[in-house]
Order: sequence, then C-alpha cells, then structure tokens
Amino acid sequence: MKIAVDAMGGDYAPAEIVKGIELARDAYPDIEFLLYGQEEKVQPLLQDSTRIKLMPAPEVIAMEDEPVRAVRRKKNSSIVLAATAVREGEADAFFSAGNTGAVLAAGLLIVGRIKGIDRPGLTTTLPVLQKPDQSSFVMLDVGANADTKPFNVVQYAIMGQYYAQSVMHVENPRVGLLNNGTEADKGDKNHRAIHEALSAMDEINFVGNVESRELLNGAADVVVTDGFTGNATLKAIEGTALSMLKLIKGEIMSGGLGGKIGASMLKPVFRNVQSAMDYSQYGGAVLLGLKAPVVKTHGSTKAPTVKNTIGQIHELIASKSADQLVTYFAEHGEQMSALKESLK
Amino acid sequence: MKIAVDAMGGDYAPAEIVKGIELARDAYPDIEFLLYGQEEKVQPLLQDSTRIKLMPAPEVIAMEDEPVRAVRRKKNSSIVLAATAVREGEADAFFSAGNTGAVLAAGLLIVGRIKGIDRPGLTTTLPVLQKPDQSSFVMLDVGANADTKPFNVVQYAIMGQYYAQSVMHVENPRVGLLNNGTEADKGDKNHRAIHEALSAMDEINFVGNVESRELLNGAADVVVTDGFTGNATLKAIEGTALSMLKLIKGEIMSGGLGGKIGASMLKPVFRNVQSAMDYSQYGGAVLLGLKAPVVKTHGSTKAPTVKNTIGQIHELIASKSADQLVTYFAEHGEQMSALKESLK
Repeated sequence: MKIAVDAMGGDYAPAEIVKGIELARDAYPDIEFLLYGQEEKVQPLLQDSTRIKLMPAPEVIAMEDEPVRAVRRKKNSSIVLAATAVREGEADAFFSAGNTGAVLAAGLLIVGRIKGIDRPGLTTTLPVLQKPDQSSFVMLDVGANADTKPFNVVQYAIMGQYYAQSVMHVENPRVGLLNNGTEADKGDKNHRAIHEALSAMDEINFVGNVESRELLNGAADVVVTDGFTGNATLKAIEGTALSMLKLIKGEIMSGGLGGKIGASMLKPVFRNVQSAMDYSQYGGAVLLGLKAPVVKTHGSTKAPTVKNTIGQIHELIASKSADQLVTYFAEHGEQMSALKESLK
Repeated sequence: MKIAVDAMGGDYAPAEIVKGIELARDAYPDIEFLLYGQEEKVQPLLQDSTRIKLMPAPEVIAMEDEPVRAVRRKKNSSIVLAATAVREGEADAFFSAGNTGAVLAAGLLIVGRIKGIDRPGLTTTLPVLQKPDQSSFVMLDVGANADTKPFNVVQYAIMGQYYAQSVMHVENPRVGLLNNGTEADKGDKNHRAIHEALSAMDEINFVGNVESRELLNGAADVVVTDGFTGNATLKAIEGTALSMLKLIKGEIMSGGLGGKIGASMLKPVFRNVQSAMDYSQYGGAVLLGLKAPVVKTHGSTKAPTVKNTIGQIHELIASKSADQLVTYFAEHGEQMSALKESLK
C-alpha cells in the first residue's frame, strides 16, 4: 500500500514528520510513502530513502491560510499534490498534520465524497477510562461541518459503525446520539427526528441518546452528533483534562507532598494518566465518507504520533472500510433517498 | 427579604433542604423563608421555626414527572405553590433542588418572563483554575432551551452581563460567544450573525469567540451559547473532571504511592481539587430573564449547598438585578425589536 504524506504541515514540520515516517517505514514493511514537501528542506532530513519517495512540492499552505482559497490557489502545495495523488490512484491514503481546514477542503474537493454521502464527518477516537471491556470510543462529526442536517447525522452512524468494526475491531458497535438527556423525546425536533430514524434502522445497534457527561465512561462505541456540538464537546473534554492535570500536579507539589514523595516517584503516575488521556495514541482524526482515508493529526504532532497514525491508516487501508462504505451506499441508494426526504 | 423554598425537591429532601434552610436562616438575619412541603414530613424536621414559615403543600412533583404537565396539574405541589407565592409578591425569589424541567416550567409559566425577553437562560457559575485574577465565570444557556434563536443568545449576553456585575461583582465583564474557533468568521451563519450583533453593541464588553477548550482557563467572564451546545459543554466539563479525579486517585493508590504517602496525607490534596471543581460553592443555576430570581441546584444537593445557594439568592435579591433587567428591556424596546428583525 502507498500513503501520500504532507511533510510540511504541523508545528514541527518537516523534521518530526520525516522522522515519524522513517519510524513507520521501519514498522510497516508493506507501506511505501510518497513524501510531499519542499525538496531543499526535506531531502537533508531524510536519513534512509528506502520505500520513501520524495515528491517535490514547492508551495506550502500555512496554518493561517484561508483553507478553501489556499487549496484552490496553491496547486503546487504539499497538501494539494498529496491529495491529488490519492485521487489519481497513485496513493491509497493521505496524511497531514497541517492546516485542518485545508486538509478537510482538499479531502472534499480533491479526493472526493463517496457517492450517496452528503457530508463527510471528522472522526476522533477518545479514551474510555476505567472500564474493563472498553478502552475507547469514536465521535463524529467533531468539526468538519458547522451546519449539519439530521440526515447527515444518520449517515454518520453508518460511517462510524463501519469504522469501529474495521479499525477498532468492535464486532457490534453500540451507536449513541449525543443529546441533552437520555430519554427518547429529548432535544429539539431535529434530534427527535434523528433518534426516530436511527431506532428504525435494523443495521444500526442504536443504544439511544447519550449525554456528554457519560462519554468517558463508555456510554457508546460510536457517538454521533452535529459538527458544532461535537467540536464544543471534544474541546471541553480536552480543556478540562488538561486543566485538571495541571491543578492536581500543582496541589501535590504546593502542599509539600511533592517533596515528600519525590518528583521522580510521581512521574510514572502522571505519565500513566497523561497516556490514558492522550488520544494521539489512537492516531489522528479521520475524515470519514471520502473515497479514500484522509487523516489529520494535531498541529503539535511529533514523530511517535506520526508513526501511530500511520499504523491507524494501515488498518484503514487493509480493512477496505472506504470500499465497504462505497458498496453500502451504492446498495442503499433508494433507502437513503427516502430517508433524506423524510428528514427534510 | 422573603424566599419561597421547595422543601420536597432533590434526592435528600426534605431532610437536607430543611437543615440547609436552618443554616441559611442563622447566616442571613434579614431573610424570611416560606417553606413549601408536606406538613407531616417537614414539620418534624424543623428544629427552630424562627423566620421559617411552613406552608403546607400536599402534592409533590417527582423527578420523573413530565415537567409541563406536572406544573399544570399538580396545583398543590411545593413547586407550583412556591412559584405562585413569588408571582403574587409574597416572596422575592424561588429556590428548588427538584425536577429541573418542572422548576423551569414553573418559572416560565408562573413567575413569568421579563417583558422584552423572549427566552430565559439557565445560568451556571463554573470555576476558573489557576488564574490569579479570576476565580469563576458564568455560562448561559446551559439547557433551558433546546431550540435557541440568534436573538436569544444576544439577549443572554445582556442578562449574563447584569448577573456578573451584580452577583459576581465583576465591573466590566468580558462577554464571549462559544464557537468552534476564535476568528470572527467561525461557526455557521447563526453564529456569525450573533458575533456581528454583539460586536455592534456598545453596552457589551464583547471579547469575541471563545472555544470550550479555554473556558476553565478564564477566556471570558460571561460565556453565551445556545442551550443545546451549552448543555453538552457543561456536562462534558463535569464528566471529564469526575473521570480525571477518579483516574488520578486510582493511579496513585494502585502504583503503591498511596501507601507510601498515606491516605490521610493525600486527602487534603483531593479535597482542594474537589473544592476547586465544585461549582455548587457558587450556588445553583439561575433562570435569568424572569421577573424574580428562580434558582435550581443539583438533585444531589445537601445542606451546605442549600446554604450557599441561599447566599447567592440573597445577593440576587439585594442587587435588584431582575429589576435592572426589567428597566433595561423597557428602555431598549425599540432597539430589541430592530435587533430581532435583523436576526431573523
């Protein structure tokens, strides 16, 4: 399999991206990499070019560039060229740590949607804490769309289910709808309509509404929501986890306990906690609903996360989940049209 | 001042409510209480009836009752009678730890909206962690309305500003709009319209968009949002804080560090953290936009929180913030009509 990589995206690019790709190359002997970036910057960083082909991309889309315009104008940027390689069948997936909006735009405009899917959904894996039989869950959409229709959320359930099955290996994933209460009649009329539609679909193991308070406790394997609420919920979880960790560290140190225990003894505790909360171990956010995997990691990504994310993309390609979605939506065209009509 | 209290609402009612009201009575010599509840249950719990008048309410609205129907049918319930006392001018505020929906419905249908305010907003105070000059912020709406219009959110900014000034004593509160990015053009068209409207209002110290990741860091003093997103964000913060605390406790104990430090030495650390995160110290959630304060605490409320919440209501009544809002909206009727029209 071949993965097209944006070497220029992210706070530590290209150095950490190149380093991570070399780690991934050593870990996955069946992957070849097309590494898109400015030749003069990337070439000197590449220690061993085995299965890594440097693809010159003179332009760079910066973090602050307006996404859609940048994708339209910077035809020779690493993001545009890597996405184009996927569209042309020269690569099986596209990976970037760069400008999120530009990666989403390149995915949508260049790689392209699966026929029958109205809106792709950005999908993140988050940890489940202290539940013996579940270590993580996925949530979508966490921000590809700010203006989501009920029909889109119903499609997210199907996409999320395929993802949980093929990448997380959950046999019969429980799908929950993020809502402001667990009862079936909660939320506005859109949420009640989504609830009804999901309840009626035999192919979905729908467990009903879930509240954001219960997500880290493992309320579902797949949580579907509109992109605006999903984005706010994801960022609230991130922000609270970071603040709590800082607060507790501060309390232990300032209370004099830190001195007594010894900073070196506390380190493993906080390392374990940080690692439990660190969802970069699951890879990046996947833009589900495209013809091929498009995966985006945090801008702060360093080499180990690049390697983890390539592992996740390896699973995505090997499981052929994009092809399975193509088949599903091709076979369910009529059902989807009827559903869309009924949810208008 | 007089406060009408629902003695029957909450998991530990009536015992903890009565106990808390006695604590508050001792702390605030200028408050008289009208205590609504089932006489045979409440009377034996009341140790000293100084400034506490037991008001018989034979019916009880249960946690699982359908709110609007219960408020309409159970005319002799503690919630309905207490709210009615406020409407009739016999009390200055209404307090309950009972069925949230029923308290909101009683506030809306019995106490009534301030003229000119379309939708009241449920307002919660949350902690700001480790920022020297800010200990808390307020957020509204956190769930009174699942279906919020842009005009409502603009009104929340005015209501939240008055609340922060009069109850939290923040002179010129920074008002932020919860959005999926900080740039002015973020969000859907509704959020862009709200952003534009708030930017144009001289009376609001609008600091622009804030992301849920930065709330506990003190991104604003007043955070306004639609009730659905606000609810999801609040519950995500709560859930993550609880999970993190459990996780870190578990790590310290299971790593053997707990034994070394001694559970007794760790207790103050976790007590401080829990108290930093415990927003019941700030009182309950206030349904802002009504003619008089209506305040709701968690169902799990015990006596100390009841006392804190009465303190908060004391501030609310003393500051006359409801009257100030009445005046503001009476004086700005034309401006509000024009704003509403422009946000349609």
